[in-house]
Amino acid sequence: MHASDIVEEYPVVTLDTDVLTAARTIGEQRLPAVIVCDAEGRPHTILPSSQVLRFMIPTYVQEDPALARVYLAGPSEKLMSTLAARVVRDLLPTPQDRDSLPVVEPEATLLEVAVLMARRRSPIAAVMDGDVLLGAITVSRVLQVLLPPAPTSSPASPS
Amino acid sequence: MHASDIVEEYPVVTLDTDVLTAARTIGEQRLPAVIVCDAEGRPHTILPSSQVLRFMIPTYVQEDPALARVYLAGPSEKLMSTLAARVVRDLLPTPQDRDSLPVVEPEATLLEVAVLMARRRSPIAAVMDGDVLLGAITVSRVLQVLLPPAPTSSPASPS
Repeated sequence: MHASDIVEEYPVVTLDTDVLTAARTIGEQRLPAVIVCDAEGRPHTILPSSQVLRFMIPTYVQEDPALARVYLAGPSEKLMSTLAARVVRDLLPTPQDRDSLPVVEPEATLLEVAVLMARRRSPIAAVMDGDVLLGAITVSRVLQVLLPPAPTSSPASPS
Repeated sequence: MHASDIVEEYPVVTLDTDVLTAARTIGEQRLPAVIVCDAEGRPHTILPSSQVLRFMIPTYVQEDPALARVYLAGPSEKLMSTLAARVVRDLLPTPQDRDSLPVVEPEATLLEVAVLMARRRSPIAAVMDGDVLLGAITVSRVLQVLLPPAPTSSPASPS
């Protein structure tokens, strides 16, 4: 079984997507991460959702938990307009080395996919066929496929 | 709005749950992480799914990507029986300081929850009311609540 057998469609944002749209995509589709593609449609980086959250919150608020209690208690027009005015490119740290991205070929085995996600501590791996992004595989999907449910009847072992 | 308003039921495993069951829980319910509780029902640690994957794969396989291609290509009785024979306790590194766990009180504001998940790079936060685990909040749930969908009609700004 290979990556191409279990790849699933996955939402993609670009470096020029505004941050509000990117964050809403994660929220609406309950995603563990978001794939950020460059203008050529190649993955530029893969951001776990917790990192997107980190980029959304001013550093001075992150560093002072007491501020967090008063800064924002619910949906806020101000937060949304701030996020709408910035694009994903603005949030990224120094460009990530492309080789270090959790990207696999369609021919990768499930374990190759698993090892890559484990090493990168990434909740997803992108599947690229040459220059074409086929979609992504989540950690939970790999576990679902590697570990099928126990049979409900008593398993009859041949020996 | 507070943690108690958006907390959701979340599957829990214990230190004595076998690893196969824990990993299957993640796979079947497509979870971003799993909460590991001690015998008293308090969170002992919270494992992102990618870490569970890491613990499942022998280190010598993780360190040699070439091995990964031949080691395991699909569901395997051997893998499942190995995982069934170990419990979550066996997988954990040195005990995590309880204070550093992404755990919040029911009264925490959304931003306090968000800051904690961002700082810990955790895909979920557990919500504890005293000694009782109420459930968990995922990053995507926070984004869903903080950033409601844009209205479909043209937004009429009052000024």
